[in-house]
Amino acid sequence: MPTLAANLKAFQGLKTDLFEKDFLLTWEHPEEELRAIITLADTLKTLHKQGKSFRAFDTGLAISIFRDNSTRTRFSFASAANAMGLGLSDLDEEKSQVAHGETVRETANMISFLTEVIGIRDDMFLGEGHTYMKEVGDALTDGANHDVLHRRPSIINLQCDVDHPTQAMADLAWLKEHFGSLEALKGKKIAMTWAYSPSYGKPLSVPQGIIGLMTRFGMDLRLAHPEGYDLIPEVVALAGKQALKSGGKFSVSNSMDEAFKGADIVYPKSWAPYHVMERRTELLKTSDQAGLKQLEKECLANNAKHKDWECTRAKMDLTAEKKALYMHCLPADITDVSCKAGEVSAEVFEQYRIPTYQEAAYKPFIISALMFLTRLKDPGAKLEQIIKRSQNLSL
Amino acid sequence: MPTLAANLKAFQGLKTDLFEKDFLLTWEHPEEELRAIITLADTLKTLHKQGKSFRAFDTGLAISIFRDNSTRTRFSFASAANAMGLGLSDLDEEKSQVAHGETVRETANMISFLTEVIGIRDDMFLGEGHTYMKEVGDALTDGANHDVLHRRPSIINLQCDVDHPTQAMADLAWLKEHFGSLEALKGKKIAMTWAYSPSYGKPLSVPQGIIGLMTRFGMDLRLAHPEGYDLIPEVVALAGKQALKSGGKFSVSNSMDEAFKGADIVYPKSWAPYHVMERRTELLKTSDQAGLKQLEKECLANNAKHKDWECTRAKMDLTAEKKALYMHCLPADITDVSCKAGEVSAEVFEQYRIPTYQEAAYKPFIISALMFLTRLKDPGAKLEQIIKRSQNLSL
Amino acid sequence: MPTLAANLKAFQGLKTDLFEKDFLLTWEHPEEELRAIITLADTLKTLHKQGKSFRAFDTGLAISIFRDNSTRTRFSFASAANAMGLGLSDLDEEKSQVAHGETVRETANMISFLTEVIGIRDDMFLGEGHTYMKEVGDALTDGANHDVLHRRPSIINLQCDVDHPTQAMADLAWLKEHFGSLEALKGKKIAMTWAYSPSYGKPLSVPQGIIGLMTRFGMDLRLAHPEGYDLIPEVVALAGKQALKSGGKFSVSNSMDEAFKGADIVYPKSWAPYHVMERRTELLKTSDQAGLKQLEKECLANNAKHKDWECTRAKMDLTAEKKALYMHCLPADITDVSCKAGEVSAEVFEQYRIPTYQEAAYKPFIISALMFLTRLKDPGAKLEQIIKRSQNLSL
Repeated sequence: MPTLAANLKAFQGLKTDLFEKDFLLTWEHPEEELRAIITLADTLKTLHKQGKSFRAFDTGLAISIFRDNSTRTRFSFASAANAMGLGLSDLDEEKSQVAHGETVRETANMISFLTEVIGIRDDMFLGEGHTYMKEVGDALTDGANHDVLHRRPSIINLQCDVDHPTQAMADLAWLKEHFGSLEALKGKKIAMTWAYSPSYGKPLSVPQGIIGLMTRFGMDLRLAHPEGYDLIPEVVALAGKQALKSGGKFSVSNSMDEAFKGADIVYPKSWAPYHVMERRTELLKTSDQAGLKQLEKECLANNAKHKDWECTRAKMDLTAEKKALYMHCLPADITDVSCKAGEVSAEVFEQYRIPTYQEAAYKPFIISALMFLTRLKDPGAKLEQIIKRSQNLSL
Repeated sequence: MPTLAANLKAFQGLKTDLFEKDFLLTWEHPEEELRAIITLADTLKTLHKQGKSFRAFDTGLAISIFRDNSTRTRFSFASAANAMGLGLSDLDEEKSQVAHGETVRETANMISFLTEVIGIRDDMFLGEGHTYMKEVGDALTDGANHDVLHRRPSIINLQCDVDHPTQAMADLAWLKEHFGSLEALKGKKIAMTWAYSPSYGKPLSVPQGIIGLMTRFGMDLRLAHPEGYDLIPEVVALAGKQALKSGGKFSVSNSMDEAFKGADIVYPKSWAPYHVMERRTELLKTSDQAGLKQLEKECLANNAKHKDWECTRAKMDLTAEKKALYMHCLPADITDVSCKAGEVSAEVFEQYRIPTYQEAAYKPFIISALMFLTRLKDPGAKLEQIIKRSQNLSL
Repeated sequence: MPTLAANLKAFQGLKTDLFEKDFLLTWEHPEEELRAIITLADTLKTLHKQGKSFRAFDTGLAISIFRDNSTRTRFSFASAANAMGLGLSDLDEEKSQVAHGETVRETANMISFLTEVIGIRDDMFLGEGHTYMKEVGDALTDGANHDVLHRRPSIINLQCDVDHPTQAMADLAWLKEHFGSLEALKGKKIAMTWAYSPSYGKPLSVPQGIIGLMTRFGMDLRLAHPEGYDLIPEVVALAGKQALKSGGKFSVSNSMDEAFKGADIVYPKSWAPYHVMERRTELLKTSDQAGLKQLEKECLANNAKHKDWECTRAKMDLTAEKKALYMHCLPADITDVSCKAGEVSAEVFEQYRIPTYQEAAYKPFIISALMFLTRLKDPGAKLEQIIKRSQNLSL
C-alpha cells in the first residue's frame, strides 16, 4: 500500500467537484472523482490502521434514513459519521411508507438546520428510491436558496432501487487492493451473475451498481442470469456504452458457466427480476396483501427452477486458474449453513470468507471519504492537515 | 442582524439566573432572562451561519424523553445537543404510560449520573405533563442534595400540557428578526386563533405558549376560537394580567374575522377544547377505548361545524395591508394538500411556506441557548471565549 | 476519599493485562486487576465530581447489544462511552433471538471495523449468554488475526446468565467507599439472600456475581435461599474455594434469619431457581408458549410459599447493631409501593433509598474504567495526562 505521503500527493492531484453535492449514482460522477474517493478512502483506512484519528469536524449532524433493514451499511454509516466527528441521528419513519410531496419537502428542511450529511436507504420500491432522494435533494436546495438552511446538507445514497454506490465503490477499492491498482483491473474478467436464493424480492441495486461502475475501468464484464431475470434496461444499456468507452467489454448471457469461464472475479448474487419488482411496487403501494402473497409464491416457484445457479467448487473450477476472486455484498445465502440451498456452497464461501470481510471493510472508509469530499471546501488542504496532525500525536 | 460583538455586549449586559435550573414555563422567568435567551440564540445562529462551531462542552449527556411523537422538536434537540458537544441518549418509555411516584424518582436519578440536560415532551394528558416534569425535577434536586448526582441536570420542556416554551421562544425570535427588534413588537396586533382540522385531540400548549409569552412584549393579542374551545382558564387569566402590565392588550372572541381584522400577525392553529382534553385524560388513564372512540366521534362532529375557521385568502385580506405575517408551528393541515379541509388554504400556505420554515429554524438555537444558560456558571465569559475562538479558526 | 494524586500513584502501582481483552467474568481476572479497576473508577468519579472531563478518545464507536430490557445499565454504558469520547451505536436485534454460528461470526466483524468496545447484555437464557459472548469474542479475534479488523474491540459483559460483573464491581466500589477501604471488608458479614417477588424468571447473575466477587476479599459470605432455589453449582463451588483462599468464609443455608443474624451487609434479591431457568431456556428455544405459561404458573405458586422472605424492619433488627447496610441492584420490588408483597418493606427501602442510589452511581465509572483499561496501551500514563490536563482547565 502506498505511503500516506504518496496517497496525499495523488489525492491532491485529482480534481473533485463534490462540495455540498449529493452522491446518488456513481455514473453521474467523472472517473477522476471516483479515483479521488478511492484514494481518500485508502488514506483514511491507513490512518485508522495506524491508530490515528481522521476527525475533520468539531460538531455537526449526520442523519440516517433507513426505509429498509440494514446492519452493515447502518454501522458503516455510523462509524464514518463518528470518525468524521459528526453526531448520528436516525429518522425513524414507518418503513413501508412512501412519503412524497409536501411532507418530504418540509421534513427535509426541518431535520437539516444543523445537519451536514443525510444518508438514505430506500430500495424497496422500484421507481421510487432514487426519485425520493432527488426530491429530498431538491427540497434541501430550495431551503438553502431561501436561507432556511445555512448550508445545504449532502445526501449519500445508502442503496436505492437503481444503484448501491457505497457498496460498488467499496468493491472497487477492494479490487484495487487485491490486484494492486485500478490500472491492473483493465481487461480483468468479472462475472456478475444471478444466483439461487430461497428468498425473493432482493433489490437489483447491487448488480446494477457493479455493472454501472466496473465497466468504467476497462474490465471485461459478463452479466449472466436466467431468462427473465433482467435488470433495469437503462442501466444495462449504460453499462454497454461505458465498457465501449473505457476499452472494456460487456456481455449478457443466460449461462452461469459461460460467465464463469476464465473469470478473474465472480460475484454470484440473487435478485428479483425487474418486471417482478415493478409489479411488487404496485402491490405494495396499494397494500394488496393477497396480491403480494401470490406474487411471492410465483416467484419462489420460478426461482426454484434455477437451483443450479449456485457457486460451487465445480463452478469455481471453470474460472481462471480455478481460483477467481469470489465477491459478495453479504450476507450470502450459504447452502447448508443459512439455508438448504443457496447462492454459494459452504466450501466455497468458507474459502473466501475472510476476503469478503475485507471487501466489506472498505465501506466505512468509502462513506467517510464521501462525507469528507461533500462537506469540505478544500479537502486536499484538510487531508494534509490531518496527516500532519497524526504524525505529532502520541497515544 | 447585529454583529457578533454587539450581540455579545448585549448578552453580557443581561442578567440570568438559570444555572442548573429548569426551563418549564416561560412565565416563570423574568423578561430580562427571556431577552438573554433570544440574544444568545441569535448569536449562536450567526456563528453557525458563518460556519463556526459553538461547542461548549467536551463531553456530557443530553437525554430526551418523548412521551409523544415528534420529528422537528426531536431533531432540534438532537442538533442542539450535538452543537453544544453533548451526546444524545433517548429514554424510550412506553409512550402512553403515565409513570409516577417511586419509578419517576428512581429513574430520574439512574439516568442522570453523567447527564447535563433532560429534554421532555409530555403533552398527551391534560394535568399530567407539567406535573411529571416537576416530579422529575424534584427527584433530581433530591439526588443532588444527597450527593447521588454530582451536578443537578436541567430539564428543558419540549412541550407539556400547559406550555411549549421552545416553540414560543423560537416564534418570538422569528418575530424579532422579522420586525427588527423586540421593541418593534409593541402594539403589533397578533391573532392567535383556532382553525379547523380533521383530526382531534391536538394539545393546547402552542396557543397557551403564545398567549403566555407574547403578552409580555406589549403586543395586542387577540385570542379567538369557536364557543367551547377554551384554553386552560389560568393561562388565559395570566395572559390578561401580563398584557396589562406590559402595556399591551389581550382580548378573547369567538370570531376569526374579528381577530384577523387589521392584524399584523396571524397564527391559526387547531386545538382540542380544554374540557375535552380533561375527559380524554380520564379515559386514557382507565384505558377506556370505547369511551375514547365516542369522545373522538363527538369532537370530530363538533369540529366539523367550524370548517369556516380556515385561513384563506379572503381571511388574509382582512389583515393589515392584506399581508399579515402567517405563522405556524408545523406541520399545518393544508386544505387539498394534506387533507380535504384544514387549517389553511394551499395558496396562503404556499405564500408563507418559507417564512414558516424560517420560524422553525430558530428552535435548535433556542434549545442550544437554554443548554448553554442552564449548564454554564458564567455564560457571558464562555460566549466571549467561543466568539474569540471562532475568529481564529480556519476551515 | 484519597486525592487524585494518591489515586494516580496507587493506580500506577497496580499491574493490569486488559489491553484489547474482554471483561466477562470477574473471577477470570486476578485480584490486582480488580483493584486497579476500582481505583481507576474512583479516580474518574472524583474527576467528574470536580467538573473535569476524563475524555480519553477523539473518536471511536461503542456498540451496545441488549438482548433483554435495561434502563440503568443502558444509561451507564451510554454515559461511560460518552465520557470516554466514544460514540454510541445500538445493535437492535430481535430480543428473544438466539443467533449463533455463521451469523454471529459475520455480524461481529461487520459492526467492528471502527469499533473500540462492545457491551452485551444476554441474560435471558441459562447456558447461552456467556457462550454467546465467547463466540463474539472468538469472531473478533479471528477478524483481527486476519487483518479484517485493525484493532480487536473489547467486549464488556453487561449481564449474562453467569455473572453481572459491572454490577458486582460497582457494588464492591460502593462497599469500599462505605467501609473506607477494600481491606476493611475483611471479615465483614454479608448476607446474599433470596427474597420474595411476585414476578418470576429473574436472572441468577446478580447473586452469582456477588458470591463470585465478594468471597475474594475476605468477607464472610452467607448465601441463603429457600430449598430448591439453587444457583449454578459451579459458581457456588467457586465461591467456596475463593473464600477459603482469601481468608473469608462461605456458607449456604435455607434461612434468611440465619444469614441476617449479625450481618454487616444484606443483599435480599429475588431470582429464579437454576433448574427452572434451564427448563425455561428449553421452552424458549422451542417457543413453547403453553409450556412457558405452565412453568410460570408453577413458579409463582412456589414463590408464594416464601412470602416471608421479605426484608422487613424485624429482619433488619437481626443484623449487626440492627443497622446492616442494605444493598440492591435496583429496581427493588417494594411491598405496598411497586407491588402488594415484595423483596423489601417500604420502611426499610426508604431508609436505605439514597445508599442504593449511591451504590448505582458507581456503575458508569466502573464501565468507564473498563473501557479505559481495555483500550489504552499505557493506561497509567494516560491517566496522568488527564489529571494534569484537568488541573489546567477552567470553565
